[in-house]
Parts: sequence; C-alpha cells; structure tokens
Amino acid sequence: MKTVGIIGASGYTGGELLRLLGQHPELDVVQITSERFAGQTAGTQFPGLQRYRNLVFESLKTVQLGDLDGYFLCLPHGKSMPVVKQLMASDTKIVDLSADFRMKSVTGYEKWYVPHTAPELCAQAVYGLPELYRTEISTAKLIANPGCYVTSVLLPLLPLLSAGLQPTQPLIIDSKSGVSGAGRNPGMKGFYAEANENFSAYKIGRQHRHIGEMEEQLSFAAGTPVNLIFTPHLLPINRGILSTIYLNFEQPVSPEQIQEILGKAYADEMFVRVMPTGETPCITQIRYSNRCDIGFVSLNGGHQLVLVSCLDNILKGASGQAVQNMNLLQALPETLGLPTEGAIT
Amino acid sequence: MKTVGIIGASGYTGGELLRLLGQHPELDVVQITSERFAGQTAGTQFPGLQRYRNLVFESLKTVQLGDLDGYFLCLPHGKSMPVVKQLMASDTKIVDLSADFRMKSVTGYEKWYVPHTAPELCAQAVYGLPELYRTEISTAKLIANPGCYVTSVLLPLLPLLSAGLQPTQPLIIDSKSGVSGAGRNPGMKGFYAEANENFSAYKIGRQHRHIGEMEEQLSFAAGTPVNLIFTPHLLPINRGILSTIYLNFEQPVSPEQIQEILGKAYADEMFVRVMPTGETPCITQIRYSNRCDIGFVSLNGGHQLVLVSCLDNILKGASGQAVQNMNLLQALPETLGLPTEGAIT
Amino acid sequence: MKTVGIIGASGYTGGELLRLLGQHPELDVVQITSERFAGQTAGTQFPGLQRYRNLVFESLKTVQLGDLDGYFLCLPHGKSMPVVKQLMASDTKIVDLSADFRMKSVTGYEKWYVPHTAPELCAQAVYGLPELYRTEISTAKLIANPGCYVTSVLLPLLPLLSAGLQPTQPLIIDSKSGVSGAGRNPGMKGFYAEANENFSAYKIGRQHRHIGEMEEQLSFAAGTPVNLIFTPHLLPINRGILSTIYLNFEQPVSPEQIQEILGKAYADEMFVRVMPTGETPCITQIRYSNRCDIGFVSLNGGHQLVLVSCLDNILKGASGQAVQNMNLLQALPETLGLPTEGAIT
Amino acid sequence: MKTVGIIGASGYTGGELLRLLGQHPELDVVQITSERFAGQTAGTQFPGLQRYRNLVFESLKTVQLGDLDGYFLCLPHGKSMPVVKQLMASDTKIVDLSADFRMKSVTGYEKWYVPHTAPELCAQAVYGLPELYRTEISTAKLIANPGCYVTSVLLPLLPLLSAGLQPTQPLIIDSKSGVSGAGRNPGMKGFYAEANENFSAYKIGRQHRHIGEMEEQLSFAAGTPVNLIFTPHLLPINRGILSTIYLNFEQPVSPEQIQEILGKAYADEMFVRVMPTGETPCITQIRYSNRCDIGFVSLNGGHQLVLVSCLDNILKGASGQAVQNMNLLQALPETLGLPTEGAIT
Repeated sequence: MKTVGIIGASGYTGGELLRLLGQHPELDVVQITSERFAGQTAGTQFPGLQRYRNLVFESLKTVQLGDLDGYFLCLPHGKSMPVVKQLMASDTKIVDLSADFRMKSVTGYEKWYVPHTAPELCAQAVYGLPELYRTEISTAKLIANPGCYVTSVLLPLLPLLSAGLQPTQPLIIDSKSGVSGAGRNPGMKGFYAEANENFSAYKIGRQHRHIGEMEEQLSFAAGTPVNLIFTPHLLPINRGILSTIYLNFEQPVSPEQIQEILGKAYADEMFVRVMPTGETPCITQIRYSNRCDIGFVSLNGGHQLVLVSCLDNILKGASGQAVQNMNLLQALPETLGLPTEGAIT
Repeated sequence: MKTVGIIGASGYTGGELLRLLGQHPELDVVQITSERFAGQTAGTQFPGLQRYRNLVFESLKTVQLGDLDGYFLCLPHGKSMPVVKQLMASDTKIVDLSADFRMKSVTGYEKWYVPHTAPELCAQAVYGLPELYRTEISTAKLIANPGCYVTSVLLPLLPLLSAGLQPTQPLIIDSKSGVSGAGRNPGMKGFYAEANENFSAYKIGRQHRHIGEMEEQLSFAAGTPVNLIFTPHLLPINRGILSTIYLNFEQPVSPEQIQEILGKAYADEMFVRVMPTGETPCITQIRYSNRCDIGFVSLNGGHQLVLVSCLDNILKGASGQAVQNMNLLQALPETLGLPTEGAIT
Repeated sequence: MKTVGIIGASGYTGGELLRLLGQHPELDVVQITSERFAGQTAGTQFPGLQRYRNLVFESLKTVQLGDLDGYFLCLPHGKSMPVVKQLMASDTKIVDLSADFRMKSVTGYEKWYVPHTAPELCAQAVYGLPELYRTEISTAKLIANPGCYVTSVLLPLLPLLSAGLQPTQPLIIDSKSGVSGAGRNPGMKGFYAEANENFSAYKIGRQHRHIGEMEEQLSFAAGTPVNLIFTPHLLPINRGILSTIYLNFEQPVSPEQIQEILGKAYADEMFVRVMPTGETPCITQIRYSNRCDIGFVSLNGGHQLVLVSCLDNILKGASGQAVQNMNLLQALPETLGLPTEGAIT
Repeated sequence: MKTVGIIGASGYTGGELLRLLGQHPELDVVQITSERFAGQTAGTQFPGLQRYRNLVFESLKTVQLGDLDGYFLCLPHGKSMPVVKQLMASDTKIVDLSADFRMKSVTGYEKWYVPHTAPELCAQAVYGLPELYRTEISTAKLIANPGCYVTSVLLPLLPLLSAGLQPTQPLIIDSKSGVSGAGRNPGMKGFYAEANENFSAYKIGRQHRHIGEMEEQLSFAAGTPVNLIFTPHLLPINRGILSTIYLNFEQPVSPEQIQEILGKAYADEMFVRVMPTGETPCITQIRYSNRCDIGFVSLNGGHQLVLVSCLDNILKGASGQAVQNMNLLQALPETLGLPTEGAIT
C-alpha cells in the first residue's frame, strides 16, 4: 500500500479523488488539505464518502509535506508552482492537476495565465496523457495532468495530425461541458436556478485558457503550428464534456483512412474507445467511467470531417486521469481502481 | 397607468415582478433598487427582460421614496420594517413580500425572526391572501404578502378548518420546493452541481420560519390553536412547490364532504382550482401560472385524508400574488397581467 | 373575436397554442383535433390549461372543416397536404406548422421528405418568417410556418447574406435543442432516464431535414447557392435552441459592419433582439418568450465570425411564430397575446 | 470465476447488473436475454458498457437455462414464476428481482399482483435483505430481492419495531423516487419533457403494490399487524429514493434511544450508515453506491419522530442488493464488486 496526499481536497477534483481512492486497493490517502474547510472532516463536504469520511482537512500552511509516496495537487493555477517546487526536493511523486506545468513554452503559459515562478521545472514535467506519453510518465517525478476540455480535443486529433493529415486552419472546436467543470465555487452562473434549463456559449473563439495547452500539443503532433477557434458552452448537467470538431481538408480523406488511424492509435487502450464508422458517442456512455469515446462522420467525399468525443470531465478529464498517472508513477497496473464501465442511467 | 417601484429588485421575486409587469397594461415600473447591483441596468441581471431592461438599479440609501402609486418590497425580513414605516407616511400603497408584517402576534413574529421595530403597524397590515381577505385588501394601505410554502398549505387547509373539521394534532405537512425558493444567493447548497440530481429534507419538524405564519392563520380559521409538523425538501427544479398534507380524523369525513367544502370555497376563484375527486395536481400544471391547484385522496373510510397542493413559488407563492394584491389595492381587475395558464412543458 | 381551430392539438405545438390562446384577447379556439386522444378533453393531456381545459379533441375524420376564421395545422409532414388542400377551398386562413409548404422547390421538398401531393400550392404558400415576409403574410391565405432550428439559423444569417457578405462554403452550424423539439412521442431517446444528464450529436452534417429549408432561404438571400454543414445536438432541457454559427471570410469583415447590418435589420422588431457587440445570448433569456436573441464575436481581424442565436423552440420556433402569423393574417396587432419577456428562472 | 446469466437484461436493473459485473472479479456474465432486443448486442442498448458490450441478447424462448452457477431474474412480476420453477430443478442459485416470491403470504401476493402459479416455492424463497436475513441467504437457493421503495422503508423501521417500539398506526411514509424506478419503458409520464421540472404524487395512500411487501416484513418485526399510509412521488432525477417517515408515539421515545437502536443494528454493516443524531442524508450521498443512509429528527419531547432514509434505487434498491445476495449465495465476500462510496456530484 502506497501513501498519498491530496493538496486542495475540498473541490470536485479532490472530492472525486477521495471517492476513487476510497476503493483503490493500493493507494491510501493519509493527508488532505483545504484552506476553506481546515479542521473539518472530508465527510462534512462530501457526505457520500465512506472510507475517508473522517479524514480531517489540514491547512497547507501547517501541513508536513514530502513524506508520502505521492501527492495529488488540486490547487488553482498559480498556487501549484510553489508547492511543486517544495515537493521536488523530496523523494516523492507528483501529479499536478493545475495548469502550471502543462505547457513546455513558459511564455506560452504566461500569455494565458500568470508569471511563472518555477520555469526551470517545466522541462522536467511530463504531460500526463498516458495514451501519448506512457513511457515518459513511468519514469517521471512530476506529471502535469491535462485540462478537461484539452483531453477531449487531443485524443481525437493527435493521431490524425501525427499521421500527417493537414486540415485547413483554424480548426473549429465546439465544446460543451457540465457545470462541475467550473469548480466548487462557481459564482452566480453556477447557481442551480441560473444554470438549470439554460445553455450558453462563453469565452468564444480565442479567450479560453485551454487554447494554449491544446495548440501546443497539437503543434507538437503536426510538426507545425496549429490554430484553433474554440467555443466552450455550459451544459446543464453535473459532469461530462462533448466536443464537436469540424475539420476541412483540401485533399479529401476517406472515412476508412480516419477509422484506421484512430483504430490503430487506440487499439490497446482501456480508456479510449473508437466507435464503429458513422457512430458517435453520447455523454451518458462515459459518465462515471474513466473513458474517452470517439466517433466521426465524414462528409462531402471526405472534404469535411466531424469528430465527436466524450469524456467525464472529473474522471478522464481530471481525477481519473490523475489516478491513471499515479498508478504509472507508482509502478502499479495502470487501470487499478479506475472505472471502465460507463453509466446505464 | 399607475406608477410603481420595486425595492430590492435584483432577486428572483424582484426579477419576476419586472417580467410580469413588463406585460402589465396598467402598472408601470419607474423605480427599482438593489444594493448589490446599484448603477447597473436590470438587463445585466435579467437579460430576458425586454420592457424594463434599461431601467437602472438605484441604492435604497439615495432613492426618493413615496411619490409613486405603489411599492413592492422584496427585501429580506428585518430590512422591510424601516422602509414600510417610512412609506406609511406617504400617500401610497405597499405590498411587502417579506415576513415582517405577516403575523398579527408580534411575539410570534419575534420568536421566529428578529425583534420587531414597527409593532404598531402589524395590526394595520392585511394578510395578502386575496381568496381569504379580498375585501380587507381592497381598502388597505399595507399588504403582507404570504410566504410561498405558507400559501401552498393555507389554501387547502383553511376551508376545511373553517368548516369545523378537527384533524388530530399535530398535522403533518411534507413540502417540496424548487431551488429558486432559496433566493438568488443560495450558498453552496444552491450550486448546480450540488443541487442537481439531489434531493434532501431540511429544517425538519419544527425549525422552518414559515411555521409561525402557517399556525397563526390556521388557528384563526379553526378558532383554536393548531400545531404542525412541517418538513420542507429541496427539489431539483427551478420553480414550484408541492405540499403533501396528511390529516387524521377520529370522526371520519367523507370524500364528498371534502370535495364540497373545497369546491364551494374556490368556485369563483380564477387562481385556485380544485381537482375532481381522486385526482391530484403536478407541478408542471401550475408552473409559470399564478394558480394554486388542489386535490386529495380519502383513505380508510374517511379516517385519513391526503391533500396535495401545487403552486409556482415565484408566482402564486410570491410575485404573482403580490401583483394580485397590488391590482386590488389600485382598484384594477384582480387578474390583470397575471397568467392563468400553466405550462405545457 | 375570431374563431380558430387547431388540427393535431395534442402535441407540444398544439398544447402551446392552447396555452397561448388561453390568454389571447381576439382569437378563440373552438375546435381541436387529435386521433390519439379523440373524445378526451384538452385538460387530460395538458392539465395546466385553464380556459380550454374542457374543450374536447375531435377526430380529423369526422370534424367539420372550413367554417372558422383560421386554422393552425400541427400535423406531421405529409399529413398536412390533404388538409391544406381541403381548407384552401374555404374562406379561411391557414398557418401550417408542418414542413409541407415551406420549400418553393418541390423537388427540394421531395428530396428531404415525401412525394408532394399538392405541389400547385407551394407557390401560393408564404414562408412565415414575419421579419422577412411581413407584407406577403398580411395578404396571404396559406402560411408555411418555419422550422425551429431553421428560424434560429435564418434570423442571424439572412441579413448578412442579403448585405452581400460571402462566407466560405460550407457554412458550419452547430445547433443544440431541448427535448420538446422531438415531439410528444419521442421514443426511447426521449425518456427521462435516457436524456437527462446526457447530451449527444445526431444526424451530423448533411442528414437533418431542416437543411433543405435553410439552404433554400439562405440561397434566396445570397442570390447564389449556399451550402451548410449542420450538426444538431440534444440538450437536457425542456425548451430552447441555441445555434453557434461559424463563418470564415477571405475578405475580413469588421465587427462594426456586422453590428450595423444586424442592428438595422431588426431595429424595429419586437421579437428579435441584437445584443451589444461582444455579448451573446443564453437560452434562459428567451425561454417562455417569443423572441430570438442574436449576438456575435468577431475573430482574427474579422476573418472569422461566430454568431450565437437563441429562441424558444415551441414559441418563436413554432407556436409563438404561428400566432404572430395568424395575427397578421387576421389583421390584428402582430404582437397580440405573445410574450415579449423571457424567463428570470 | 463463477458463471451467471441475466434473464431480462435490457431494462435498467439488467443494464446495471452488466455495468456492476463488468468490474466484478469473480462473477462472469455469459448469458443475457431480452425479448425486445434479441439478436442485438448489449452495447446497442447500453453503449457505456465495456466488458460485456459484445454479449448478445438471446430470447428466453430458445435459451438453454440451468447450466450456470447463478441467475439474476429481471423480469416483470408474473413472468418470473415459471422461470424460477424451471431453474429450481437445476443445480444453480437464483436471485429474483421481481416481486413474485417476496411475500410469504400467497394471498397477500395475489391481493396486490396476480394469481400465483408456484405458491409452493414461496416458503423456500428467502427475502433478500442481507442485513436481516444474512444467514438464511447464505444457504438458500432462491432469493427474492426486495423492492426499491421497500428497502428504503424497512431498513430504518425494522430495528425500531423489533425493539418493541409501538408507533400509532397507520404509519405515514412519504417517499420520493427518481424516474428510473418506473423502468425502461415508462410511457408518456416518463418522457423527458413531461417529467423534467415536474414533480407529482401518485398512487396515494393505499394503492402502490409495495405496500403488501412492506407491511408483511414490518408485521414480522413488530409481532403484530402494521398498517401504512404510503405516498410515492416522482422526482426529476435519474436515480435515488428518499423516504420521509413520520411516527407518532403515545409514550415518548428519546433521540438517544433511537440512535442506540439504529446504531447497534447497523454497527457492522458496510452498506447501511446511520447518521449522527439530528443529521439526515441527501440523495447525492448514496447515488452510485450500494448504501442506504439513515437519519432522524426527534420532536416534541419524543412524541414524534421523523426518519429520513436514502438509497440508490438501482443499486441498494435493486441490482446492487442483488449482487450482494449473489455474493452470499456463491460464498464470495459480500461486498465484492460493490461500490461503497457515494457520489461527489
């Protein structure tokens, strides 16, 4: 049994880690922190918890850091850097769920976020998409766990770009996310009577911070700069992201080709499923699982392609992927403690 | 055209008044206040508004009070008293949506709320349930608009108690309310990802403030003290209350008797509908209408009675009833500008 | 008071007409039909109705047609043609909510639907978008009421294409609709426990029947054939459509230009609102109103444009627009009985 | 690894068994049946499934029965009897999720359901509430898995009645259930646009079939006939039941006494949690877990008691409890493959 801590454990990603690890046979949570709820038990915030309901939130200010086998950092961007810096001095493994170490380009990070106070660590951090960087993750010390929207965009697109397909730029991505994506303190837009029976676009086009991270990884795959138009929308559901991606090809690409590229890329993956040609996934089928499901429709003789991807923003989009990464870091089976089955209802 | 103001207009009851009066042919809103949003237009908070979207929230501290034909007060309890006091000096009409003047018993009010700073006005205030106090309302200056849960409990029970029926005490009331009932600043319990797919009881038994108001009006009708057990629950819907009321009679009461009493009481009412015997209402049928619909099931030869009532907590439970009262105060047709039709979906 | 009938009145568009006309001062519903529920009252299907709850559904087979001032036809496509043919012989006015007379091109209609049995009437029918064809509607006998998705796409795009803007083809339209859009007999996908907490794309790209109608009207406006990629999605809400439209311009178009074109087009409209530059609408703001609200974001120096439009699929997308058309047909004020105010919650 | 079959596997209880057993280490599903979907794969109905998505539904008419280690029967009441009869002849174990063998009183069963065609087996069947009948279940061949509402009522009440407490009759039970409880073919009331934003009572008082089963088990515990008034309500959520139970005691019972009785009864249970005094559970905390959580509030010096219990109707209310029973039947650890952790959101 390995011991782990969760820094910033009172939000949805922290709570979901407590829920998942509540049934994990090899990872034991022995330390949790929260500034808002320091001194309270995890059960006061998450009454659904059973195994860890009596664990008490400590304050990050007074907690002893570095003694455990691993740490999950569920802090806001900017707050993670100093904690990572401190933990790097210890003999431990880190999965950082913030954006702080996701980009290789420090100036790229600073364009979308805040000045970076630990730029020297960016090169060491491994981008935590196991389907792409499994080998690097296994031997890493610091994992930058990808963003939720980002994972839903990269998994369908990376194999296509790596295979040399060249869609017309900018690529158009129309994403829709459940409300939990806004965090556990979402302001008035997140109030039930404002979000329920509602739906809206926000940060349309070139405004959402996840664009930097998406474009960097897509550009690595394409070997050339990739530009996006990205429109996130707020769905009246608790959890789940569906991304509809529109590609245009001057040289047509057949559906068989697309199916082959995607099928090959994910043939051995437990947490990515490529649907049969012409079928596209729905959110229910991945809710409460750690899977990302991908489908597509080819149009106009292959000149246009519509990709649809779905994942649970708290699982494959955050805490589930974080456990997948921690399993790899601790040399445990990658799927340990992770749900492969999606919801029936 | 009469001029009215809405004091505390940025919550759901204020917003709903703006929506309703946006299509009212005889009441014109010329003044709105909000401390949180002073200086902003109503449209920033309620983008659905059309007629009044450019009206600007003023601060109560600087607003000129008393010049209009009527005022709706949508302030929290305790905050209404001083404003009412000030307005009573002017030649205007007041519909107070707070709890401050709902109880005749000042000590009763103080038991459930705060010390009363204008106790001398309690006797002058008329309880704003038009189906019961229509005549008094017409000639009043100050109306205390009933609570949302309260209206759903009084409308089915008052006629039965007035008719002399004597259910075993305490009466049991199991109520369920949509989230908007908690106001437009509901705290974490009101966050979408906490309230959605959830359901819970709260303030079980003898804790909810509406009990005082319910018991006072029920006791008036019965001519003897009436005691309740009242359990409110939080429903994952935007608007609507359904109350399930359990009565026990030592002397059985036939369903025909119940149907007759309720039927007679509301035969001429536009905003109360008694269902045919054995049918009970659902929330959809009253959503977005100003109606309260009532049904019942008689059990065990009349020894037990289950009443079910439904209303829209923002309409018949608050702002709709307030407009009904203001219509009466201004000698306008009582139903003017009020929706009689419930939702199809 | 004019008399009207509703043919096929037990679905959502029929029910919504009954709700709207329940408070309409000049249109009186005296006849309703339904094959499924013939012999039952409207109130059994729509318990929220007040004014018309005791009106009885007749069978279309036995009903006397043609004596009323107007008819709303809420029949499935293909079923409307024979009824329209019969009504055209009477001295009455018809608003057909089906697709049967929406397209001028009979072969276009037949490509998406079924063989047309009254092609000679297609030229006589006026396309019921009052903002575009108000004059023609006023003097028409037969109105083809537009589709719900279609209205949300045409209102933002028609003025831009009419003004000569030439976006790269195909235009990309990503639409999201509430479940009521699938009708009142939606099959298993429409069951609560399947649709709730779910979200999915369907009929991706070139499969949805509304494409024919959209492309025909857009081509009229552009003066040249217009091609679309159209992806509808199913939103877990009762009512509302939001369309996100992606345009690419080889020659950049400034946001000021877009704002001016749209602003001018709808300056005098009661049921279309153009948002201030940079603001986009949400579904709540148009729910339960007859409005379509439009906003946009201009990107990359005007090379890309993202338009967002919202409407209530049962109101401006169907029954509200139908009443707007009937008002015009009956020489009544166009806005009579129609809600201009959107929901607060 | 034990082999099991699921008879009637295309509804929610069958689908949930496939989801649960998709991660069960010792039970392997090798046979599923469905009349509606015979010949199709499980994945067509439940695209979220991973392990069993390619398993094909067979028809009960042609399937070979009796060769497996165990069978789950997810058939409607009345349809289970003949299959159970047939399986009793084989060397296998049966968990019947229908009502057919839940009541010891055959006349009681026939009063609420249909004539019983295998009454001789009723005595052999063990009522599948492991917290009450664990020993009997371990050595049984046929388990009658309890109803969902029933489990939520029995778990809080049985210990109190067994301890000799004598509440005034009839006991009042106000229950609320998510829509999946109505099955995967729920008719128009189960359509999204009818159930969403809605809430209603149904089968009020003495009409719901679960009453027979509840009263029989409660009477066993009390040693005397127990009578209920039971009002189920339909909640706009996918899964979850909350029961609010009102007891009246002529002789007051202290909260300490209640806490002690419940606490003792469930001290060693993994799937029942008694909340601290004064706290009551919400539905989120048990969603997607196999737990039933119980709390209470004592009123008026112990003369009244309000109990609140919550469970997931598809898990502890059906398929989760069924797996718990099958684990016991197969001599596996009782909690194997069952979720103990409730939802965070």
